Amino acid sequence: MTLDNICKEIKESKSIIILAHKDPDGDAIGSSLAMYLALKQINLNVDIVMPVYPRIYGFLPGATEIKKEGNSNNYDLAIALDCGDRGRLGDCIEYFDKANKTISIDHHGTNKMFADYNYVNPDSCATAQSLFVVLNFMGINITKEIAECLYAGILTDTGGFKYSSVTEETFEIAKELFSKGINIADISKKMLDTITKPQLLLTKIAIGRLEVLEDGKIAFTYITKNESEEVNAENGDYEGIVNYGRNLEGVEVSVFLRETDDGFKVSLRSNSYVDVSDVALIFGGGGHKKASGCLINTPLEDAKTALVKEIKRYL
Amino acid sequence: MTLDNICKEIKESKSIIILAHKDPDGDAIGSSLAMYLALKQINLNVDIVMPVYPRIYGFLPGATEIKKEGNSNNYDLAIALDCGDRGRLGDCIEYFDKANKTISIDHHGTNKMFADYNYVNPDSCATAQSLFVVLNFMGINITKEIAECLYAGILTDTGGFKYSSVTEETFEIAKELFSKGINIADISKKMLDTITKPQLLLTKIAIGRLEVLEDGKIAFTYITKNESEEVNAENGDYEGIVNYGRNLEGVEVSVFLRETDDGFKVSLRSNSYVDVSDVALIFGGGGHKKASGCLINTPLEDAKTALVKEIKRYL
Repeated sequence: MTLDNICKEIKESKSIIILAHKDPDGDAIGSSLAMYLALKQINLNVDIVMPVYPRIYGFLPGATEIKKEGNSNNYDLAIALDCGDRGRLGDCIEYFDKANKTISIDHHGTNKMFADYNYVNPDSCATAQSLFVVLNFMGINITKEIAECLYAGILTDTGGFKYSSVTEETFEIAKELFSKGINIADISKKMLDTITKPQLLLTKIAIGRLEVLEDGKIAFTYITKNESEEVNAENGDYEGIVNYGRNLEGVEVSVFLRETDDGFKVSLRSNSYVDVSDVALIFGGGGHKKASGCLINTPLEDAKTALVKEIKRYL
Repeated sequence: MTLDNICKEIKESKSIIILAHKDPDGDAIGSSLAMYLALKQINLNVDIVMPVYPRIYGFLPGATEIKKEGNSNNYDLAIALDCGDRGRLGDCIEYFDKANKTISIDHHGTNKMFADYNYVNPDSCATAQSLFVVLNFMGINITKEIAECLYAGILTDTGGFKYSSVTEETFEIAKELFSKGINIADISKKMLDTITKPQLLLTKIAIGRLEVLEDGKIAFTYITKNESEEVNAENGDYEGIVNYGRNLEGVEVSVFLRETDDGFKVSLRSNSYVDVSDVALIFGGGGHKKASGCLINTPLEDAKTALVKEIKRYL
C-alpha cells in the first residue's frame, strides 16, 4: 500500500529534500513546513527548499529554516508537496530529478502521478489534509507547531472553510489541530485578515472607480503604475482587490487591471457560470474556471474594450 | 436544571413568540429561525417576529415566515435569542414583557439574566452554538434547514471560524451541521462574501476617511445619516465596515460610527488585548471582549473625543 511504502522510504532515507510548487501559497508552504518539522522530530536529515516565498508566511513555525537552495543535487529522497505535475516544481525540478527516490503528496484531481510513490487524495480540501493522514500513519506526534502549519494550509485552500472542497473530515481535522493548542484567531488574522497600509489605499482607489458593465454582470476596475508607486505597493498589496467586484451583488465576472512595466496584469474572477480561464487563454494567459489571469500590453481603454468584448460572449 | 425547565416550558406553551435583538445579525436571525423551525417540527403554535431584518438573510429557511408584528400581546411564552439585555429587544420588548413566561438563550458574557429561564453560555462562539445544545436536549431532529440556520449563526459570529471565540466544540458542531447536507460554500458566499451596491458605496466613503490615531493603534471612521440616505442603505449594508480598520496593520481598536435618528451607533472591534466591551459599557452598551457596541447621542467630534479618550486608557 502506498502509505506503507511512503513511510518506509522516508524512514530509510539518509538525506531528504522537501519541495513545493513555485510561487508557493499557504498550502504549499504550510504542508512543506509540517513535513519538515515531522521529519526533524524523528531525527531525519532533511532540508526544505524554496527559492522565494511571500513574507506573510514568515510567521509559520520552521519558516526561518527554509533554504533558497539545497546542499547538493544528490538527495536520497525528494518529497514534492502540493504539486500537480513536475512542471510546478519550477527551478527545483533538478533536485527532484536527481534524487534516488521520489514521493508526491498532493490533493489536485489533475495530479500526473509523476513520483515513485504518489499519495494524492482529490477529496482533500488541501494538501495539508492529505498530509495529516500521512503524518498520523507515520506515527508522528502532531505538535502545536506542526498543527499550525497544517491549519495554515487548510485555511488557504478553503478560503477559511468557505469553499465547496470542505468536507466533514476537514472540520474533524480542524478540531484535532485546534486541540493541539494552536491560536486559530491569530493564524486566521495573519493569513486572511491583514490589510497593509498600501493595500488599504489601493483598495480605496480601486473600489472608488469600480464600474459595473453589461447590466451589472461585469465589474471593472484598475490601478495605475503611478498609483502603485505613490503608495509604495508590493506584490501582496493587490491581494483581494478583485474580490470586491466579484462579491458585488449581480456580478458574474470581476476584472482587475494592474499596470506594470510589462503592461496590464489582468485578474479575472467569476462567480458561477463563466469559465474565465477561457477568457484568459485568448490573451495568452490561463488559470482555473473561476480564477484566471493574463497580461495585456495596450492602453487601458483598449485593454478594457477587448476584455469586455470577450467576456460578453460567455455571459 | 435550566435546560429541563426550558424544555418543559416550551413544550407546555400554547402560544410562543420568538424574538431577537433589534438590528438583527446573522446569529440573531439564524438562531431565531432555527428555533422557529424546531418548534414547528414539534407542532407548537409559534410566531417569529422581527420588525426589520437585512434582506441578505432572506435566503435562510423559514425567513419568509418572519412577521413584522405578533398576532397579539398575550403570548404564553416569549423566547429571546442572542439578546444580552432587555433593551436589545427594541420595540419587541412589549411582547416579551406581556408574555406569561420568558426564556433567553444567548452567549454574551455581559448577559443580564433578564428572563425567567436563561440559558447563557459565554463559551459558545454564537447563540447558534448554545441553541444547538438546547435543540439536541429537546430531542429536535436537526434537519438540513435547521442546520443551515445554525451554521449561518456560527459563520456570522465567528467571521467564518476566524475569531478566538471558536472552540473544539465549534468545529464539532460544524461537522455535525455539515453532515446534514448543507451547502457551506453557498451559505458562506451569501453570508460573508456578498456586497450590496449601497454597501460598496458606504465602504468607499468609510475607508476613504479612515484615520489612524494614537500611533496607529486606533482606526476611526464614520458614515453620516445623509450619506446613508443617499445610497439607500439598509441595516445590513454597514456589515463589515468596521473590519477594514481592525485588519489594518498595527491597529488594536477599530471604531466605526454610523449616524442614526437616535444618535451615533458605535461599533468597536479589537485585535488582541483591549476589552472593548469595557469601553462600550462606559457608554451604556455591551458585547464581547473583541466586538462590542453602544449608542452615543452627541455631535460627531464629541463622540469621537470621548471614545478615543476611553480607548486610550486600555492601550
